[in-house]
Amino acid sequence: MITLSSDFGWPYPAAMRGVLAARTDARLIDITHQFPRGDIRTAAFWLRELLPYFPAAVHLVVVDPGVGTDRNVLVIRAGDHLLVGPDNGVLLPAARALSARVACFELPEFDSESATFHGRDVFAPLAARVHEWGPDSLEPREELRQPADVVEYRLPEPELTAFHAKGEVLVVDGFGNAITNIPGERLGDHFGTTVEVNGESILARRSYAQVTEGEPLVTVGSHGNVELAVNGGSGAEWFALAPGDAVTLVT
Amino acid sequence: MITLSSDFGWPYPAAMRGVLAARTDARLIDITHQFPRGDIRTAAFWLRELLPYFPAAVHLVVVDPGVGTDRNVLVIRAGDHLLVGPDNGVLLPAARALSARVACFELPEFDSESATFHGRDVFAPLAARVHEWGPDSLEPREELRQPADVVEYRLPEPELTAFHAKGEVLVVDGFGNAITNIPGERLGDHFGTTVEVNGESILARRSYAQVTEGEPLVTVGSHGNVELAVNGGSGAEWFALAPGDAVTLVT
Amino acid sequence: MITLSSDFGWPYPAAMRGVLAARTDARLIDITHQFPRGDIRTAAFWLRELLPYFPAAVHLVVVDPGVGTDRNVLVIRAGDHLLVGPDNGVLLPAARALSARVACFELPEFDSESATFHGRDVFAPLAARVHEWGPDSLEPREELRQPADVVEYRLPEPELTAFHAKGEVLVVDGFGNAITNIPGERLGDHFGTTVEVNGESILARRSYAQVTEGEPLVTVGSHGNVELAVNGGSGAEWFALAPGDAVTLVT
Repeated sequence: MITLSSDFGWPYPAAMRGVLAARTDARLIDITHQFPRGDIRTAAFWLRELLPYFPAAVHLVVVDPGVGTDRNVLVIRAGDHLLVGPDNGVLLPAARALSARVACFELPEFDSESATFHGRDVFAPLAARVHEWGPDSLEPREELRQPADVVEYRLPEPELTAFHAKGEVLVVDGFGNAITNIPGERLGDHFGTTVEVNGESILARRSYAQVTEGEPLVTVGSHGNVELAVNGGSGAEWFALAPGDAVTLVT
Repeated sequence: MITLSSDFGWPYPAAMRGVLAARTDARLIDITHQFPRGDIRTAAFWLRELLPYFPAAVHLVVVDPGVGTDRNVLVIRAGDHLLVGPDNGVLLPAARALSARVACFELPEFDSESATFHGRDVFAPLAARVHEWGPDSLEPREELRQPADVVEYRLPEPELTAFHAKGEVLVVDGFGNAITNIPGERLGDHFGTTVEVNGESILARRSYAQVTEGEPLVTVGSHGNVELAVNGGSGAEWFALAPGDAVTLVT
Repeated sequence: MITLSSDFGWPYPAAMRGVLAARTDARLIDITHQFPRGDIRTAAFWLRELLPYFPAAVHLVVVDPGVGTDRNVLVIRAGDHLLVGPDNGVLLPAARALSARVACFELPEFDSESATFHGRDVFAPLAARVHEWGPDSLEPREELRQPADVVEYRLPEPELTAFHAKGEVLVVDGFGNAITNIPGERLGDHFGTTVEVNGESILARRSYAQVTEGEPLVTVGSHGNVELAVNGGSGAEWFALAPGDAVTLVT
């Protein structure tokens, strides 16, 4: 199985599908091609959330603001998963979520300077190749590199005290839910009561449907983090928050 | 084969694909994940139109405005098809279109209150399970319930007399075509002439291309219903109609 | 393998998927369903770019502004590929890119006047049928027609002199990049310097990341043509250009 993720929108993902289908009979499953363009943080967050639900697979990820610069081509083995993409930090959070056993490989012979569309010309052929090789035959072929040698994007950590949680908006999903980096446990026994979000009293509820349509709530999303939402609307708009903006939660 | 339908947009459908791919080799085919959020009517209408074109399959449908409330988890057998989703009415119109033989099952052991993302944590595992079981082995396992016991969303029926048809807009499709519940036969021998739509004279034509670009027409869509459209534009905008708005057709 | 391309948006592509899945076990791969509605030029351009990356397949293409008029139903054999769609010009540029050996077939028995949704009722069943037949068994069945007998959409050619290249915008991609018909070689040794685009001095760079975010550039896209772009923005907006608008490049 090979999964495909990118910020390509349309129609470019089809070129990767074609290159893969020409080289392998592996099942192809799209994660999404709607990551915001060049947005390492959003892609890293969602891949960390989504890839652990997949069985062992090759995960082809092309979110690559530095295409055409001299960033490396990276393959990460995480347990029985293999992740393929640019060495810009987007892969490692997902790899660490997939397995405690993470090893990184550079494949410079795939790093063609002449390529114009790396997703199609470099990464898709490489994904087909490592799918053919499998995770075990990768190790003897290439020098093992420590994760410390590759670019690691670290999703920001919140500051947690007994009195408050100071975090930030990590990403806004397609519905407008503002997903923070504050762990959901902070809402622990406060469901049904109000808590303070950036100085405002907001109802904490387990599900959107538990507030009136159009009303804001603070909840715990499927990712396990505190989420600022509006039933049937956009939490990002209601709270006037964008990725990177500070969120203070007092319970 | 398992089909997937939801109002999830992106990237959440990937979690369901992963859960399914981890449990079954069944072919996965997306219907759409762009149903308007929580819109039972639109999803019920399109599933009724689309699912009959599929061979026997498990149809996983997650349009669930009541997620987190105490609605049940439902499996419907319709002929050799199995439909899996929340018991909120969204499944039954499609089930009735698929087969005259409809039986409903509740699977309370799948109705986990602790789940945060029911599409991923409840319905996708259930779809993989019933796919493994198949339609025939479902019957002895669970108490058969009559469709009367489950929530049924009934798409509204038009009022038809010899003189007029009074209906309403059921849904607006992605092109802006306003699809009514008035049967297409009402336009029977009027193609090429004008008919009265909400008091206005509109040309009835078999296809969009038969009116000038930008001009309105009344036609019969692929669903067999009367549709208000604009060649190369939005019928909903031109006629200023939204789902639920009344439409009177005098021919 | 059967690929699917259309301008259907959602949810109509699912009807074609269902019809295909009911008739064949062939692998189904979506190219895109987001071609601008009825836009032959954009679809012809992208199919010419994308289909050559696929292995031998049946390519079902439904971009059909003349649906309901008397245009023919066309099957084109291009090497071991088969293209299926309306005879409106959209298929032939891709067919010529796939193979020098192009033969065209009309299948009038599939051209049902009674059909309301030709993608679902005519072209998808036909694609399943020709997939079953295969490219070799097509020839004895139907009279071979010369490509000259079918509608050919010709993408416009630029005027190239030693001093300038006069072309036009062919299409704008999902990112807002304005893709011209001027061959990329015209930027040959000018990368890193400025060139004149419609009278304005613009930096020519190999990749978006080589200019500051928000800055315009002229580059060569993955399709090999000159492209007007903005790093992290819309080239079409910055240059105020739409498909069909003239572009003069002086290097």
